[in-house]
Amino acid sequence: MSEKKALNIGLVGYGFMGRTHSNAYKRVNDFFDVAYRPVLKAVCGRDKAAAQAFADNWGYESVETDWRKLVERKDIDAIDICTPNNTHAEIAIAAAEAGKIILCEKPLAMDLVQGQAMVDAVEKAGVINTVWYNYRRVPAVTLAKQLIDEGRLGRIFHYRAEFLQDWTISTDLPQGGAGLWRLDAAAAGSGVTGDLLAHCIDTALWLNGHISTISAMTETFIKERKHTQTGKVQPVGIDDACAFLCRFENGSLGLFESTRYARGHKALYTFEINGEKASIKWDLQDLHRLDYFDHGDDGILRGWRSIHVTDGDQPYMKHWWVPGLQIGYEHTFVHQVADFLENLAKGESTAPTFRDALATQAVCDAVLDSAEHKKWEAVVPV
Amino acid sequence: MSEKKALNIGLVGYGFMGRTHSNAYKRVNDFFDVAYRPVLKAVCGRDKAAAQAFADNWGYESVETDWRKLVERKDIDAIDICTPNNTHAEIAIAAAEAGKIILCEKPLAMDLVQGQAMVDAVEKAGVINTVWYNYRRVPAVTLAKQLIDEGRLGRIFHYRAEFLQDWTISTDLPQGGAGLWRLDAAAAGSGVTGDLLAHCIDTALWLNGHISTISAMTETFIKERKHTQTGKVQPVGIDDACAFLCRFENGSLGLFESTRYARGHKALYTFEINGEKASIKWDLQDLHRLDYFDHGDDGILRGWRSIHVTDGDQPYMKHWWVPGLQIGYEHTFVHQVADFLENLAKGESTAPTFRDALATQAVCDAVLDSAEHKKWEAVVPV
Amino acid sequence: MSEKKALNIGLVGYGFMGRTHSNAYKRVNDFFDVAYRPVLKAVCGRDKAAAQAFADNWGYESVETDWRKLVERKDIDAIDICTPNNTHAEIAIAAAEAGKIILCEKPLAMDLVQGQAMVDAVEKAGVINTVWYNYRRVPAVTLAKQLIDEGRLGRIFHYRAEFLQDWTISTDLPQGGAGLWRLDAAAAGSGVTGDLLAHCIDTALWLNGHISTISAMTETFIKERKHTQTGKVQPVGIDDACAFLCRFENGSLGLFESTRYARGHKALYTFEINGEKASIKWDLQDLHRLDYFDHGDDGILRGWRSIHVTDGDQPYMKHWWVPGLQIGYEHTFVHQVADFLENLAKGESTAPTFRDALATQAVCDAVLDSAEHKKWEAVVPV
Amino acid sequence: MSEKKALNIGLVGYGFMGRTHSNAYKRVNDFFDVAYRPVLKAVCGRDKAAAQAFADNWGYESVETDWRKLVERKDIDAIDICTPNNTHAEIAIAAAEAGKIILCEKPLAMDLVQGQAMVDAVEKAGVINTVWYNYRRVPAVTLAKQLIDEGRLGRIFHYRAEFLQDWTISTDLPQGGAGLWRLDAAAAGSGVTGDLLAHCIDTALWLNGHISTISAMTETFIKERKHTQTGKVQPVGIDDACAFLCRFENGSLGLFESTRYARGHKALYTFEINGEKASIKWDLQDLHRLDYFDHGDDGILRGWRSIHVTDGDQPYMKHWWVPGLQIGYEHTFVHQVADFLENLAKGESTAPTFRDALATQAVCDAVLDSAEHKKWEAVVPV
Repeated sequence: MSEKKALNIGLVGYGFMGRTHSNAYKRVNDFFDVAYRPVLKAVCGRDKAAAQAFADNWGYESVETDWRKLVERKDIDAIDICTPNNTHAEIAIAAAEAGKIILCEKPLAMDLVQGQAMVDAVEKAGVINTVWYNYRRVPAVTLAKQLIDEGRLGRIFHYRAEFLQDWTISTDLPQGGAGLWRLDAAAAGSGVTGDLLAHCIDTALWLNGHISTISAMTETFIKERKHTQTGKVQPVGIDDACAFLCRFENGSLGLFESTRYARGHKALYTFEINGEKASIKWDLQDLHRLDYFDHGDDGILRGWRSIHVTDGDQPYMKHWWVPGLQIGYEHTFVHQVADFLENLAKGESTAPTFRDALATQAVCDAVLDSAEHKKWEAVVPV
Repeated sequence: MSEKKALNIGLVGYGFMGRTHSNAYKRVNDFFDVAYRPVLKAVCGRDKAAAQAFADNWGYESVETDWRKLVERKDIDAIDICTPNNTHAEIAIAAAEAGKIILCEKPLAMDLVQGQAMVDAVEKAGVINTVWYNYRRVPAVTLAKQLIDEGRLGRIFHYRAEFLQDWTISTDLPQGGAGLWRLDAAAAGSGVTGDLLAHCIDTALWLNGHISTISAMTETFIKERKHTQTGKVQPVGIDDACAFLCRFENGSLGLFESTRYARGHKALYTFEINGEKASIKWDLQDLHRLDYFDHGDDGILRGWRSIHVTDGDQPYMKHWWVPGLQIGYEHTFVHQVADFLENLAKGESTAPTFRDALATQAVCDAVLDSAEHKKWEAVVPV
Repeated sequence: MSEKKALNIGLVGYGFMGRTHSNAYKRVNDFFDVAYRPVLKAVCGRDKAAAQAFADNWGYESVETDWRKLVERKDIDAIDICTPNNTHAEIAIAAAEAGKIILCEKPLAMDLVQGQAMVDAVEKAGVINTVWYNYRRVPAVTLAKQLIDEGRLGRIFHYRAEFLQDWTISTDLPQGGAGLWRLDAAAAGSGVTGDLLAHCIDTALWLNGHISTISAMTETFIKERKHTQTGKVQPVGIDDACAFLCRFENGSLGLFESTRYARGHKALYTFEINGEKASIKWDLQDLHRLDYFDHGDDGILRGWRSIHVTDGDQPYMKHWWVPGLQIGYEHTFVHQVADFLENLAKGESTAPTFRDALATQAVCDAVLDSAEHKKWEAVVPV
Repeated sequence: MSEKKALNIGLVGYGFMGRTHSNAYKRVNDFFDVAYRPVLKAVCGRDKAAAQAFADNWGYESVETDWRKLVERKDIDAIDICTPNNTHAEIAIAAAEAGKIILCEKPLAMDLVQGQAMVDAVEKAGVINTVWYNYRRVPAVTLAKQLIDEGRLGRIFHYRAEFLQDWTISTDLPQGGAGLWRLDAAAAGSGVTGDLLAHCIDTALWLNGHISTISAMTETFIKERKHTQTGKVQPVGIDDACAFLCRFENGSLGLFESTRYARGHKALYTFEINGEKASIKWDLQDLHRLDYFDHGDDGILRGWRSIHVTDGDQPYMKHWWVPGLQIGYEHTFVHQVADFLENLAKGESTAPTFRDALATQAVCDAVLDSAEHKKWEAVVPV
């Protein structure tokens, strides 16, 4: 392994995403033959003991408690931002100015204005960047993209996606605190829109192109929750649920929904695309399968195929095991790191880049605006 | 069977629905112990030869070519309206004035104004009536209603339904003509909204109560089709696809979609309801199953149950075969006739009545208005 | 309908199968254009009141309490035998001698010897005959046959079938009595072997050809049950479960299992056939679907297709509704009557004939022999 | 991480299993808090270049080409045997005599005699040992075990398992050679029996106890294949397919099947257990789900539950991600290493031990004997 170039990682934040990224960095070279070797140089968190424990567990060489220091360190090549949404912009812009490679968790920003500033910063600095919309790299989803690009679906009529969870159906859950900043509007910006729909939107833009106009509605089912910082019961500022209609530039109709109040669904992210010649469906809860209907099949034998995406000629799978043996959620991050390192060797950023993620941000903003003003909104071009 | 009272049926229209109704009349007494026995007295259609062939096939005693004559016949107790949508009102109002029992195909009318006139007519005449929204009487759907009424779902957060087909994805298909009046706006009033969404809405109102406000969009993918009456290529006036967001009076959010351009789906009518305590899902393409998730189940063993609704203690099923042996589509009509005859013996109309169907019409009108004006619309109370 | 020839039916037995057959006779002309019209001339049962009630319900013109009288009646064209297994032979032989058309419930006989006598009788008398192995005429199963006959599967390697139920898992259930003669060895001959496996075997012989050798095991889980005739707790003589290995003449391997002790399965009859080029699967609990895997599909897109068998070009379906609308269990009997009447017009018996059913009987006998003697047995050629 | 004790691993063999084990060693400490830290000390293979490439990829510190040398090395604590089946015994016995901890791939041995010698060796030497029957540690399978141990199924009536693949349906495939030693009887001992059924048997013995008697059949569909060592077309000595009936000591009936000729199945390992009170099913191709039917559920709501085994209170899952996010195949090996290291700290071997695996070997031998002699065989007690 000596011939691989080291890529020194500085991770900011050590929560759920800190784990998925760290795992990806540690595994990529075992399975992918890429020119770089990620080195877990430093992890940064305000709580020093917690950050140290994380470093010990994952093998980070050092710990910082101030991300500004991390950004300044000469021995850090890449800043990986895994902190709550309200901190992405400041860290990313500073990292760009320091000339660092940047890998930023999604959603890119709190809103479009902030996101635009981030894009401007990385483009001005000319730094390599990517945003962790990891679901593009589920093999079944990548296969879906391949089928669409090959024209197998023909003209697209419909795109629908939903991301359904049920983990916040309880008045006892506070807003803020470890793992619960997603319920705090000040930290998260929005609720399911930025957390879940942003994934659906990123995938949709990738698979089906631009969205033109939107009509949305949001709802907050539990109106007040105790805030962990103040200790007081306060209004909940996030959207618990959000649904929207839209029109894509290619003439197809879109329907999106997300909620944390769909009892029975832990993380049901599904999409379905109906084309003139074929249709596809996918579901995160069985992520290793792609459903496919081909109208070109012999008439009496047409049916939805359940494709078990585990063969060597299906995306990413030759790097793993043998046909029939499924991979899981975490592998999507390994795939993104693998692509990232391969592109890095070519001096290129990896999609979705900050600019790609800005397009998703524009849709999210239009969704929230539409819901607030109860009218159709055009998506701002970015 | 001599002790059963005869109910003389006069059927108007002999298309697809004419068949389903005729079958229901002929089968009900074999399986249900009700006080009435439907007698196939007459079928009415403008094409005498075709009507006669239908009569010969199904055993109708006589044929009429003018529905006005049928309505006037003294030996007819009940008028069953199976004609295209644009004829429902005139026939129903005449039948009401003639004091006939009325069974009318859905949707009730071309619009709310027409529907209101029909309701006024039957209520003024005091005639027994029903509308053939048959899916309420799929045993799995009736079971869903029972679970909701028992409070098993608790507070409802979400209701979503879709009715997806793919049979009109071809520019070769004309508008108008046998079986194709559904593509002709003059005959059908609307496209998928009245044809398919009306079913979804009827079920939704029954299961989840009133809808307050709506934001909808419609699309016509194939803009021109040859019209069979004129022989010319003419603009298509119907909606090929329609989707809408809504809010129910109980505070839940609704999402509805229908299309005839969803490649791979012949007749996928599904609904899902998410409550605080439980969720349910149903799918017309496997109509004998109800999916149910009960949050009250032991935590490590929670999962969606696939209930095979074929047991004697499940709705309607004791009348059929033995557990495990499924019934099909046509049985829903038999169930409606069975309930209709049972209620008739009590002097009562059977839900959905004309008035119930008017509520669905009000939602359909709001959907089409919203789509046309591109804004949220309130549903007119009826 | 006047031009159709009447076929006067004399039904012996009025239990579950009496209902399915009666329904089939009454429905066939509504949906199939065949030359004959079944007339429900008489039903025969020892309990006159019960037989009369059945006649009243279904519209039989007369009632007999002695099947010998029925067989002698000149106004009866066809004898339909729906009685317990131990009575089939005597009735069928008498009916053959009386020159009657015969439709006999499955299994044909109590054993091979008895079955052979029945075949000899019908062949000697030259009477039209059929046996009600109704599952051949589930459209998805008929489609499976069509695919095999077209060579789409190629060389067959494996055939497996199971028929799983759970309705006798209770020590409270007696043997004998209404609906429970299936637990009484004297009436049923065997347990699941003749009741359920016989179906699996009939389908297998039809789809995959002859079975050569067998190794079987049986088990009776509940050893004693109260007998309704004696009122005493007596040993149970039937097999509660039976499984067997076999070799088909075409070189494929077979695996069959049946039980009434598979908790969670009401009537799970499934088969799967693996060929060199394709595989198929079917399941009675979702009988309107056929699963199909085609190795000839593009490699990255191979997957099991779930074919919703409801299209007009799929077997039998043009006679029913429209694509996407499923039929159920009872329709298999209608199909058999339709085919029977069509063949009758040509002067031919309808498969499975008595002779076909004798082959199934030979396999059942070999299964029971193998289980008893705990060794491989050859199937006696018939 | 300094406080963890190093466990120096010497890996023999670097094929598919070498990869799964290496991955497990490298990941375990990231996710499980155990006292030991595996160190990839050496990998051993006859082809030095290939072994070196493997070492480079995975980070093994050194390479050996003679396993005897590896076994003698003082800096090696544990020998992990990933070589073809015909080499397990010799290596394991030598390793035991050298006092090494042993982790051996399945099946344990070529036959029972050889397996007994291995058990004797490890027990005499008193060395810690385990055999890699990894499927016990799929969370859904471990959950199944937990449900059975809690008595939730009640008396067991039926156990059935199958392991279906289709990768050898081609006459072009040679026997022997890289990845193809499984087709060479000299290296593999048997075909699907040792390769696939051994997994099914290990799980079955664990979940349902001892097997008493067996009736089996085997088949070799392609009788001759080119051998890579001789370059000649030679008879194929392995079983391509194997099925058997059996009786368990607890009175339940068993049915097992395995094949590499089931077109459409890449690696469909399923089992189903029917108990008096509940039933369970599992399927390797969707390994993160367990199907469960509870007869204790309210009658009208009974149905098979599809449990998405990804919650923190389900086996092993608290170590991974969040509910709804599935893990994959490779995690089973991580779980086995985690349990192994935890038990090691207590001075205990980890199930399945060599002795446990010997019981599976006894069943495999009885299966092959029964198939050869075409008669029921008793399983030799071990």
